[in-house]
Amino acid sequence: MVRVGVIGASGYAGAEVVRYLLGHPGVEITYLASDTFEGRPLSDAFPCFLGQNLPLCRKWDIDVAADKVDAIIQTRKNGLGMKVAPELLARGKKVVDVPADFRLKDANLYKQFYGTEHSATDLLQEAVYGVSELRESEIAKARLVANPGCYAISSILALAPLVVRKLIDLNTIVIDSKSGVSGAGRSGVDTASLFCEINEGFRAYAVARHRHTPEIEQELSFLGGAPVTLNFTPHLVPMNRGILTTAYANAARETLSTAELVALYREFYEGKPFVVVLDEGAQPNTKNVFGSNFCHIGLVFDQRTRRVIVTCAIDNMGKGAAGGAIQNLNLMFGLPETQGLMTAPVFP
Amino acid sequence: MVRVGVIGASGYAGAEVVRYLLGHPGVEITYLASDTFEGRPLSDAFPCFLGQNLPLCRKWDIDVAADKVDAIIQTRKNGLGMKVAPELLARGKKVVDVPADFRLKDANLYKQFYGTEHSATDLLQEAVYGVSELRESEIAKARLVANPGCYAISSILALAPLVVRKLIDLNTIVIDSKSGVSGAGRSGVDTASLFCEINEGFRAYAVARHRHTPEIEQELSFLGGAPVTLNFTPHLVPMNRGILTTAYANAARETLSTAELVALYREFYEGKPFVVVLDEGAQPNTKNVFGSNFCHIGLVFDQRTRRVIVTCAIDNMGKGAAGGAIQNLNLMFGLPETQGLMTAPVFP
Amino acid sequence: MVRVGVIGASGYAGAEVVRYLLGHPGVEITYLASDTFEGRPLSDAFPCFLGQNLPLCRKWDIDVAADKVDAIIQTRKNGLGMKVAPELLARGKKVVDVPADFRLKDANLYKQFYGTEHSATDLLQEAVYGVSELRESEIAKARLVANPGCYAISSILALAPLVVRKLIDLNTIVIDSKSGVSGAGRSGVDTASLFCEINEGFRAYAVARHRHTPEIEQELSFLGGAPVTLNFTPHLVPMNRGILTTAYANAARETLSTAELVALYREFYEGKPFVVVLDEGAQPNTKNVFGSNFCHIGLVFDQRTRRVIVTCAIDNMGKGAAGGAIQNLNLMFGLPETQGLMTAPVFP
Amino acid sequence: MVRVGVIGASGYAGAEVVRYLLGHPGVEITYLASDTFEGRPLSDAFPCFLGQNLPLCRKWDIDVAADKVDAIIQTRKNGLGMKVAPELLARGKKVVDVPADFRLKDANLYKQFYGTEHSATDLLQEAVYGVSELRESEIAKARLVANPGCYAISSILALAPLVVRKLIDLNTIVIDSKSGVSGAGRSGVDTASLFCEINEGFRAYAVARHRHTPEIEQELSFLGGAPVTLNFTPHLVPMNRGILTTAYANAARETLSTAELVALYREFYEGKPFVVVLDEGAQPNTKNVFGSNFCHIGLVFDQRTRRVIVTCAIDNMGKGAAGGAIQNLNLMFGLPETQGLMTAPVFP
Repeated sequence: MVRVGVIGASGYAGAEVVRYLLGHPGVEITYLASDTFEGRPLSDAFPCFLGQNLPLCRKWDIDVAADKVDAIIQTRKNGLGMKVAPELLARGKKVVDVPADFRLKDANLYKQFYGTEHSATDLLQEAVYGVSELRESEIAKARLVANPGCYAISSILALAPLVVRKLIDLNTIVIDSKSGVSGAGRSGVDTASLFCEINEGFRAYAVARHRHTPEIEQELSFLGGAPVTLNFTPHLVPMNRGILTTAYANAARETLSTAELVALYREFYEGKPFVVVLDEGAQPNTKNVFGSNFCHIGLVFDQRTRRVIVTCAIDNMGKGAAGGAIQNLNLMFGLPETQGLMTAPVFP
Repeated sequence: MVRVGVIGASGYAGAEVVRYLLGHPGVEITYLASDTFEGRPLSDAFPCFLGQNLPLCRKWDIDVAADKVDAIIQTRKNGLGMKVAPELLARGKKVVDVPADFRLKDANLYKQFYGTEHSATDLLQEAVYGVSELRESEIAKARLVANPGCYAISSILALAPLVVRKLIDLNTIVIDSKSGVSGAGRSGVDTASLFCEINEGFRAYAVARHRHTPEIEQELSFLGGAPVTLNFTPHLVPMNRGILTTAYANAARETLSTAELVALYREFYEGKPFVVVLDEGAQPNTKNVFGSNFCHIGLVFDQRTRRVIVTCAIDNMGKGAAGGAIQNLNLMFGLPETQGLMTAPVFP
Repeated sequence: MVRVGVIGASGYAGAEVVRYLLGHPGVEITYLASDTFEGRPLSDAFPCFLGQNLPLCRKWDIDVAADKVDAIIQTRKNGLGMKVAPELLARGKKVVDVPADFRLKDANLYKQFYGTEHSATDLLQEAVYGVSELRESEIAKARLVANPGCYAISSILALAPLVVRKLIDLNTIVIDSKSGVSGAGRSGVDTASLFCEINEGFRAYAVARHRHTPEIEQELSFLGGAPVTLNFTPHLVPMNRGILTTAYANAARETLSTAELVALYREFYEGKPFVVVLDEGAQPNTKNVFGSNFCHIGLVFDQRTRRVIVTCAIDNMGKGAAGGAIQNLNLMFGLPETQGLMTAPVFP
Repeated sequence: MVRVGVIGASGYAGAEVVRYLLGHPGVEITYLASDTFEGRPLSDAFPCFLGQNLPLCRKWDIDVAADKVDAIIQTRKNGLGMKVAPELLARGKKVVDVPADFRLKDANLYKQFYGTEHSATDLLQEAVYGVSELRESEIAKARLVANPGCYAISSILALAPLVVRKLIDLNTIVIDSKSGVSGAGRSGVDTASLFCEINEGFRAYAVARHRHTPEIEQELSFLGGAPVTLNFTPHLVPMNRGILTTAYANAARETLSTAELVALYREFYEGKPFVVVLDEGAQPNTKNVFGSNFCHIGLVFDQRTRRVIVTCAIDNMGKGAAGGAIQNLNLMFGLPETQGLMTAPVFP
């Protein structure tokens, strides 16, 4: 049994990690860190955990944690991973960092997008950017995995086959992404997050300046072997969970068809249990992956405009955060990749 | 491994049974009946099952079914259970009937509320009304269990301790219940079920004539040892899942307090893992049981009016249908009561 | 043209008053008070007002206000009315106070439920409790009208005919009420108000201790000529607007029928343009009054339990706040009661 | 008073036309056609009209209609306009056709996208494509106006200034549009339209083949003086009303800035009361135009990719259907363009 601790257990992503781990036969939850709920059961923060067997929440303490865990999943906030990861690694623990600290390889880019100096730059190269489907062997050997952003993972899974197979013009990528509201977390309470302000409304935000843009570009540049600059536009959908990413790019080939795209994607994601490439004519719906670690991809080649249109649905809390983190954890500890993660989506 | 078949797999309740059974270590899904999706994978009806290992859907055939299963969970519709249950029992199979066929002991009452003659009246007395928490030993010995209605189970769990302990005046019970929309099922498509007509609206329906009324009265009368006539009013909430029942009754005792009620309920439901009696001052939220088999109960004694006010939250698809059915199945086969059912609710 | 000012224009209720007044041919909006948006257009708070002709927001100043208005609609918060109303009345202005300051005639009850001393007790008797349908002539003569609470107006309109006509046992009233979320206002931002926490959830709150209870009891006691003590339970519906109240009471007569109830209510509300008594068999839906000042009432007499079940739908922001306030304003200034208020609900 | 009749009054778009016309001082509703509700009040279809003064619904009859109206707004369905418009024009009536019959100038394109032969091809050139902001003088002289599709009007208003001012490369336009569910109408009832299937889900549909594509291309080609081929992708948002269109195109100029774009759009839409160009940094929200005829536009120039990103919010039932139709009607009859249409959006 791998002994796992969760930092930020009283946030949405932390709670989702706990939910998955409760059903994971190879893992034991031995440590829950939450400043707000120190000394109290996690069910005080989330009554949905009433009736479950969980340790009490504790204030983060590296010595106590080190004694109790083999690995830490840090979900709390940007800027915390760079503080705790070095200490944990020094004590022989493995770390999955769900926020953004170890995603970007370039510390200057980090500063530009996150507004603060990076304090653990020596780990930036070691940290593996955790798209399980693309970096399985690296993750298996990693001590530190940077979990991709929720928008990023959906964008990268949507575009990776096109970029790797050089099927598109890298200068023409437009990513239009739509997310449920839980991505904003539980702590950032402001007027714009009120039920009444979100419900029955739809809007874009952070247009041309969202923080997930550089990590998408970094990963696609790496995959494509050439620098990628793209448009990424996030939107807010009045629902709790789910991201649908619609990506557009000009075909780089003379001839192409939707059927070819479907075949190519299926070959590319062969043996990747969580990525489902839909039949020609079908479109993914976030509802069909709600509460799960699955990713559904739909493909259309538009002969009129010669553009590829890829749609990709994930649960931002699942594949986009907690599920993806546990998939990485499984790989890091040599557990079956799907362990604890195969529960079907909740529908309707 | 208990081999289980599901009738009505392409309906909401059937799909939820499948979802739970996929995570049940003691059960194997060996048969899925759906006329509409005959010969096709269940993922054609529900793409949320893409990537899962399931048998193809078949048209119902007693011979094939009898060969493949030890038990059938029938979820399809009223009137079907009375046809298939006798045949299945004759072949030594066990049956959990989720619709209404075997809930009422009185065939006349069945006809009055459901509009048709009952064709298997000889089984009405044998069938056990499946409130797992109240009839555990009977269910353990049963061949045929009638799963309670979703509103009914929430009402009965809310009021049973008061009725059994004779704490309320049985003539004063008012049950005001509110349900998410999935209770209406996937097949009954009409204008009133359209997203646009439900969203941003709230209404009562079937006032003073809902079909779950007689089964609530039957069970409470049995528990209280005296005939109960009560008001039951269902309402439709613009959400997919969840029932909150608010029940009112006049106290039958001179002195009473909320604290006493909480203590009494906790004693009454001692050892019942899915019923959580909340602390004084807390109120249940359907959100905290979403996607699970749990039931949360809140209690208030109003000194001003001398009424007890009980609130009870369940997931109508979980404890109110699929979860409750599997809990009964576990008892019928001597499996641990909680097996396959302890997954935490999905939040948010 | 009546010159009207609004205090609390940057809150939900204030904005709704502004919305109605913009379409009111007998009224001119001459003053908008908002501390937060001082010196700025109201569209900074609510971009829905872009393109409309409105005065800039100002910090509240009695001298400026007195110069610009004939009447003030105060929507901002409890405790403010008792400060500004005396000053405004002293300068010959009329006041509609939408929060709770002048609803209760008993200053002790005010202190008990609102936690502070009342500082304008001399106005408590003068203030008219503004149920337009029941106190038309008093309101027409009033300088100060206390707008009823949103739950209260729906409860009172639902029960008034039964109480006045002495058709029910006054000791048996149970009011189970369900509201959209906008009733909580825009300023009270906490975790429980986040979209993710409200969406797909349903719960009761303030059970047996909600502040609207005493004003409902006060008004029904007055109408019935005998003290009324009742249960009032509010619930939160995942929608923005709308209240549905379901009220129960034992019939006081030997014989009664739903048809008689419908006839009686129609006679009682004859000439009241905003109260619609539905046909026997129909049930109100909050959706059918969304965005309007209408009130729909449904009636059922349950012969089995001999209880009357009244359902009443309003828009909490319309008849429950802004619409009702303007209806009272119309009466106070001798304008047609329906002026500016007959716009049809927005559906779907 | 212009006497107006509505065909399809018992559909969503028809009801919305009625709602606006009830508050229109220059128009009288003299005729309502609905086959389903023949001889009955419209409130049988939509109880939100209870308490309003409206003629009974009638089965469509050209003779009766011609006697009662000066103009008809046809909202019922594709294929009906081409039948009734010729008859109405022959009798000197004016027609606004809300569905698609007269939008495309090319009858072959109509057949290709709508699957049937056009039976009134002689009117295709006469009919004016009714973007009020772009074709005011033509509409003022028209007998027959084709109301643009809801997606189309939002796309055209978003892109017109860029196309007319030749600021973008016409081959690079990508339109990613998101709509509330009411666009599907009330009659098309299928499983996919059920509340439970829409709620908490988000998906694209009709990718690269939606019917609004050719009318957007036709109008932009006309405005730009060169053929435009573009991508249009519609998505379904779990809300009733509202369209947000996000449009992308490569800048055709060396230098450009967001501030320049804002200035240019404001100049372009000068004197157009329903189009609001937001300040730099602001983004439109469908919620801010809910229930109204307004259109909010947000602009960003992304220096990194040299793409213009335009976001445009309308109410699909307002500016996208009923509101736009009445704006056109006003122009056709020489009424003030804004008459009956200035009501503020309903928020929240």
